[in-house]
Amino acid sequence: MSVAGQMLETHPKDLGGVDRRKLQECIEACFECAQACTACADACLSEDMVAELTTCIRTNLDGADVCGTTGRVLSRHTGYDADLTRAVLEACAAACKACGDDCAQHAEMHEHCRIRAEACRRGEAARRELLGSLD
Amino acid sequence: MSVAGQMLETHPKDLGGVDRRKLQECIEACFECAQACTACADACLSEDMVAELTTCIRTNLDGADVCGTTGRVLSRHTGYDADLTRAVLEACAAACKACGDDCAQHAEMHEHCRIRAEACRRGEAARRELLGSLD
Amino acid sequence: MSVAGQMLETHPKDLGGVDRRKLQECIEACFECAQACTACADACLSEDMVAELTTCIRTNLDGADVCGTTGRVLSRHTGYDADLTRAVLEACAAACKACGDDCAQHAEMHEHCRIRAEACRRGEAARRELLGSLD
Amino acid sequence: MSVAGQMLETHPKDLGGVDRRKLQECIEACFECAQACTACADACLSEDMVAELTTCIRTNLDGADVCGTTGRVLSRHTGYDADLTRAVLEACAAACKACGDDCAQHAEMHEHCRIRAEACRRGEAARRELLGSLD
Repeated sequence: MSVAGQMLETHPKDLGGVDRRKLQECIEACFECAQACTACADACLSEDMVAELTTCIRTNLDGADVCGTTGRVLSRHTGYDADLTRAVLEACAAACKACGDDCAQHAEMHEHCRIRAEACRRGEAARRELLGSLD
Repeated sequence: MSVAGQMLETHPKDLGGVDRRKLQECIEACFECAQACTACADACLSEDMVAELTTCIRTNLDGADVCGTTGRVLSRHTGYDADLTRAVLEACAAACKACGDDCAQHAEMHEHCRIRAEACRRGEAARRELLGSLD
Repeated sequence: MSVAGQMLETHPKDLGGVDRRKLQECIEACFECAQACTACADACLSEDMVAELTTCIRTNLDGADVCGTTGRVLSRHTGYDADLTRAVLEACAAACKACGDDCAQHAEMHEHCRIRAEACRRGEAARRELLGSLD
Repeated sequence: MSVAGQMLETHPKDLGGVDRRKLQECIEACFECAQACTACADACLSEDMVAELTTCIRTNLDGADVCGTTGRVLSRHTGYDADLTRAVLEACAAACKACGDDCAQHAEMHEHCRIRAEACRRGEAARRELLGSLD
């Protein structure tokens, strides 16, 4: 079991009605996305055609920040606040959507953009699954 | 003029229809809130009655992360994405509301909680002003 | 191959003499540590004996911030700066050491502290390996 | 008095032998630098000559992360760890030096780079003052 999964298993308090597997997958996807967005912004910065990738870099920087913060908020369970959880997940969805929309505009996507876009899509799916289970 | 204000003034591209003064105030409020929440979480942790302040600490930690991320997103103007900006501002509002609601429950509020709550309220007002001007 | 590994493989520029496998392991360890420290701070906060765990919570919060920042710095390769890389890795080592030292003082360690301490130790080893290969 | 100053004044525990004014100035400089670096990276990204500014953008991104983390670590006083504080301040100095060195290489510095470089220099001075007072 992953470290994130073990941390959920050993939390001293009841986590309420949350689906633990979905929560774990969402936490892991958020941290993976944060790393991938950071790395993709840097890879774009090193491309010869960087001038055409500035929007991609910017959305990646936002994605790194928002996914990182979402992963941290989801890793906390003390004094759970459903409204905040939902609002952060919505912001994360908007950040990943912005990343994906921009990439679709490159006629010929860079390999690092493709890998990062797939990480964003998996993150998107994990967040939708989690948001659905919160209802 | 503050550094954040000077950075806005010297940005090479047009910032669109955004109210520059409101944007500056909101950026500054976000970074101020991020610091205040970080410091308040730590001050609560050093209180003798820490066991009664755990929800306050948790909401402060979320507030520090969400306000910090919001301040960073608002400091970027390349390839502006209105949907992401709004979603991040909504998450920030939810985080500050959670901080405020929790504090109101302390019969006798700690001085550091009061100062931080005022910083959150100013941040709240700055974000509402900015969100209104984005419409 | 992990997403972090794929991002390294597809970076458009030469990564210099760095050992790519060690770099990948160190990046992954940093993000894993950042998550584990965030979760452990929260788990400690939910323990009945929270008043005895305040130093553990504080070092975890520092660890989450420093490991997260280190993971981001290591994910960037454009305009590599060896001095900064080393200084950040040293700060990360100090943060993980503080986490470990504190835990050793609990006569009976909590399970979430044990899991997080192991993540810190793996991170420690990965950073030492990487620092050694930079010489 | 600033919010950061008020938070220091109302901390429930003794802050030890630290010079409170120097600590406050350093915390504020860190958050100001984190914002200025974030904004400068974005302003560089919007310059027509972005291809010549990629190292500047990268050092700014590192600077934003390292200064932000340093500001957070300095805002915590529970269970103070001198080794970690020093290591983080050293990493912050390395990050700000990298930002400054790169800027000096532009024959004609951009206005936003100049403003951010001054923020870095003030941060540098504040950190040196604080490090000196810790001895």
